[in-house]
Amino acid sequence: MRMRKKRHTVERISACADIVLQNAAEIGKMREKFPCSLEIGCGKGDFAVAASQQITDMPFIALEKCADAAVLAIEKAKAAGCDNLKFIIGDAENLSAFFQHGDISRIYLNFSDPWPKARHYKRRLTFRRYLELYKTLMTDDGVIIFKTDNRALFDFSLEEFKACGFRLENITNDLHASEFNANNIQTEYERNFSAKGFTINRVEAYIR
Amino acid sequence: MRMRKKRHTVERISACADIVLQNAAEIGKMREKFPCSLEIGCGKGDFAVAASQQITDMPFIALEKCADAAVLAIEKAKAAGCDNLKFIIGDAENLSAFFQHGDISRIYLNFSDPWPKARHYKRRLTFRRYLELYKTLMTDDGVIIFKTDNRALFDFSLEEFKACGFRLENITNDLHASEFNANNIQTEYERNFSAKGFTINRVEAYIR
Repeated sequence: MRMRKKRHTVERISACADIVLQNAAEIGKMREKFPCSLEIGCGKGDFAVAASQQITDMPFIALEKCADAAVLAIEKAKAAGCDNLKFIIGDAENLSAFFQHGDISRIYLNFSDPWPKARHYKRRLTFRRYLELYKTLMTDDGVIIFKTDNRALFDFSLEEFKACGFRLENITNDLHASEFNANNIQTEYERNFSAKGFTINRVEAYIR
Repeated sequence: MRMRKKRHTVERISACADIVLQNAAEIGKMREKFPCSLEIGCGKGDFAVAASQQITDMPFIALEKCADAAVLAIEKAKAAGCDNLKFIIGDAENLSAFFQHGDISRIYLNFSDPWPKARHYKRRLTFRRYLELYKTLMTDDGVIIFKTDNRALFDFSLEEFKACGFRLENITNDLHASEFNANNIQTEYERNFSAKGFTINRVEAYIR
């Protein structure tokens, strides 16, 4: 059926010009704003490569501060031809040089260094100062997915997440025996430790 | 555990410089390449507004050639504050002025004009010439989701999809009574026609 002619169509559309696209470049600008997944501490990159192959509709960025680990991850990604995976060689402290608020919708922390000595707790990547930094860069509905075989680090992290107002979901102390294992991507470290009988802890921490 | 020092780390990373990010602008460029959802023929925009609110991690672009319909859609989107929804006022014929190969991962065709006269079949938006055009702009794993109350158009379209090599999934002649209805977003047209007892046909056509 034909649409009835509306009054002042041209003027009304002009009043909304910011949401009417005129050319391909404007689509580019729009897309540029959509959020990424970020792995902090990708190590040798097994997880990042597999995850970026599973989640292909979103850019995946992997951060690693140790160049000697990063080089292996980068070469692995190159060989696998993951065109939605790129790397940053650097420290989590400096993430705000790369990202602004709303840029990251999902952060993966896989087997982060537990810094087991009590006096080093501020170095743990789930220490509240880090969590607050991540929040400033994430979308308002973002999530941090944290896995570790280290129970002490896990329990510490749950408290830190809570202290920073995260909503915790799907907590498990034995990921591989849990219902959340179906889509789990194992890291090399995870395979080794789980083969030795260690269980894997995992939590999803939502900003809202 | 500390990583053993690797040989030629710097040179090896340099050889993969295209996947190592140096600054925020490079992340912007990467994100710009990620695909959009596109509705062709959004009419008054009910579907586009609801879909863009449901799928917030991807840009949603709605095309409508009739400015008198588009203006209603645009004002509705503006009022709803959908910041991942933008509009193109134009014809499906000219999509390649806006999109390149790989730009679109999902196309919605909702209650497209059936052009019921046999001699007008080339004007139907599921005619093979259009399907081939869409394919040139879509990702290699893209999907077209097509809904219509018009059984003749639906049967015609299934043949056209097949002729163009699409893989058809989740075909139904009564969407509202089917298992695929859970996430269905109804258009205004769909609500009216289904209230009058018409059933809705739906198919997902995958490029591969």
